[in-house]
Amino acid sequence: MATAGVDVTMVSVGADLPWLTGYRAMPLERLTMLVVPVDGEATMFVPRLEVPRVTERADVFRVVGWDETTDPVALVAAATGAARSIAIGDQTWARFLVDLQAHLPGAGWRRASEVLGPLRAVKDEAEIEGLQQAASAVDRIAAQLQAGEIPLVGRTEAAVSDDLSRRIVAEGHGQVNFAIVAAGDNAASPHHHAGSRVIEPGHIVLCDFGGTFPLGDSGVGYCSDITRCVHIGEPPAEVAEMYAVLQEAQARAVAAAVVGAPAREVDDVARRLIADGGYDGLFIHRLGHGIGVEEHEDPYLVAGNDAPLVAGNAFSIEPGIYAEGRWGARIEDIVVATDHGPRALNTADHGLAVVDA
Amino acid sequence: MATAGVDVTMVSVGADLPWLTGYRAMPLERLTMLVVPVDGEATMFVPRLEVPRVTERADVFRVVGWDETTDPVALVAAATGAARSIAIGDQTWARFLVDLQAHLPGAGWRRASEVLGPLRAVKDEAEIEGLQQAASAVDRIAAQLQAGEIPLVGRTEAAVSDDLSRRIVAEGHGQVNFAIVAAGDNAASPHHHAGSRVIEPGHIVLCDFGGTFPLGDSGVGYCSDITRCVHIGEPPAEVAEMYAVLQEAQARAVAAAVVGAPAREVDDVARRLIADGGYDGLFIHRLGHGIGVEEHEDPYLVAGNDAPLVAGNAFSIEPGIYAEGRWGARIEDIVVATDHGPRALNTADHGLAVVDA
Repeated sequence: MATAGVDVTMVSVGADLPWLTGYRAMPLERLTMLVVPVDGEATMFVPRLEVPRVTERADVFRVVGWDETTDPVALVAAATGAARSIAIGDQTWARFLVDLQAHLPGAGWRRASEVLGPLRAVKDEAEIEGLQQAASAVDRIAAQLQAGEIPLVGRTEAAVSDDLSRRIVAEGHGQVNFAIVAAGDNAASPHHHAGSRVIEPGHIVLCDFGGTFPLGDSGVGYCSDITRCVHIGEPPAEVAEMYAVLQEAQARAVAAAVVGAPAREVDDVARRLIADGGYDGLFIHRLGHGIGVEEHEDPYLVAGNDAPLVAGNAFSIEPGIYAEGRWGARIEDIVVATDHGPRALNTADHGLAVVDA
Repeated sequence: MATAGVDVTMVSVGADLPWLTGYRAMPLERLTMLVVPVDGEATMFVPRLEVPRVTERADVFRVVGWDETTDPVALVAAATGAARSIAIGDQTWARFLVDLQAHLPGAGWRRASEVLGPLRAVKDEAEIEGLQQAASAVDRIAAQLQAGEIPLVGRTEAAVSDDLSRRIVAEGHGQVNFAIVAAGDNAASPHHHAGSRVIEPGHIVLCDFGGTFPLGDSGVGYCSDITRCVHIGEPPAEVAEMYAVLQEAQARAVAAAVVGAPAREVDDVARRLIADGGYDGLFIHRLGHGIGVEEHEDPYLVAGNDAPLVAGNAFSIEPGIYAEGRWGARIEDIVVATDHGPRALNTADHGLAVVDA
């Protein structure tokens, strides 16, 4: 905070609070807010009726319960003292920021991710172990998918998504975060919502799924995120050729994710290979996103991000090729940048598995 | 908006957007934002790769996709024109408000709930039917609980919570929002997190659960929220006496929820009866909250809220009595204020059901 010139950081709903304290605020209209001054004691303001949920850690923060007829925003504002520069949790509800600004007209406001983003982006050993456990769990599901152990033909995308969701929990995750299943030309929509389309022979089936895997009794969990595609029956040459380019681009981007490489350069490696392979303009999203206690966090592997990767960064590498109205494919691993080179946490086969029609 | 003196309303994540458009924004770092000027055309800014998820309604709003290397905040800021007073969705992430304020230094910011809260708080017939379907679904589960059809003794709170969650889905909800199960003195913590306590004879078991019930193909759903208590074996006199006071207070508060009554007065009816019954200070939260597409929304039945109830308001009536270290109880129904008097949507028995030890 001193480095960033921030007097007070305050965090509410979202992942910052559990990452700092092990406690996750209820996403309700009753404000929970941890107020951390650059010097002095941290205080968590909690609705009185939720105080029993919180384990106070007197060495880290104290807990103040507020009553139903108290204005918690006034309490929080008073706790900022003479702060001029306040960093507020990125996912805090805007209503509380609007109300705080009315109480603190002289303060300047910044995103708490300016302070917390760089800290959260460098994973320690326990965090990498958490990400590895999560990755191994979804790798097992990917292997089931590729081995034809998850029925596809004749089921809807939504039914397969439900099936994947059950397996995510069965493999040890505490919660399912998403389970995209996109068949045939639906795979050309990167954030397709699994729907009523019935999977049939000739479809490519793109599955992108992940959850949060609890890390011991820390109160937090680490996320998985994997994408693999399978083809129902032998793919036509057009799809096989596209997939070969994609697989090469993904592998080369993983290899390029070395400590010191600017994030944008890793994106560019995959993008250039896909363009050179004849699919210019069909890789329509960034290469990847950081991952940790949230599915998407710093660092982002995207054009314009000059920040160099540092040891301990964990992120997805997920190029895709999308031909609207025809097909789409994506391959995604979670990778950690280390001083010994990129370490891919996902090891499920990267090929386009063919499952029986 | 004209009445409230608002030039532009903008909404992102949360329930306002689906309530207005049928589309729910993905809660991610890629901004989705509907910009509604007091005069002129509404525009929804959507990440390019999520555009296929949105059904544009040209008569209501147009869709503008933004690319991965575009700054969506700059786009949204430009779309506000010369707006001086901007209402921003209550649950919009603070990071976007911080960034918008940097682009629009002259604007004044308010909560979108100033505009949308009064609209959302008055339910039309279809919405009341949605709430009724949701209420009837949880009533059926409450009846199973009271009839002893849901095993309790020997199971943990967490296991019973999972069981209730499965039943919430089985009875037609699209999602589970919460399933509080609190046994014995845990019931004295109103927002208890269902845990490892094993339910045993002599426990009171407080169950407070609800989900979101889809309303046809509208893209939105309406919430249920019910609390009932059961006792494992005959309750001791102390608990039976407390419960009788609570049940009377709850019923009288429902009867007091007439059109025109200030919200605080309904709260006061229950609070006074509980105090007069000998439990002064043990009803430690507000009486209730509005309910609709969100579990908690306007109007709030709480001391200090002078706003009179209007026909179409839907809200919980949920007094509780909490004796720390001993027991707790709460009874909750969803009620609609109508011109013909209060209409309780939940009709599950209100008594303290005794189930076999």
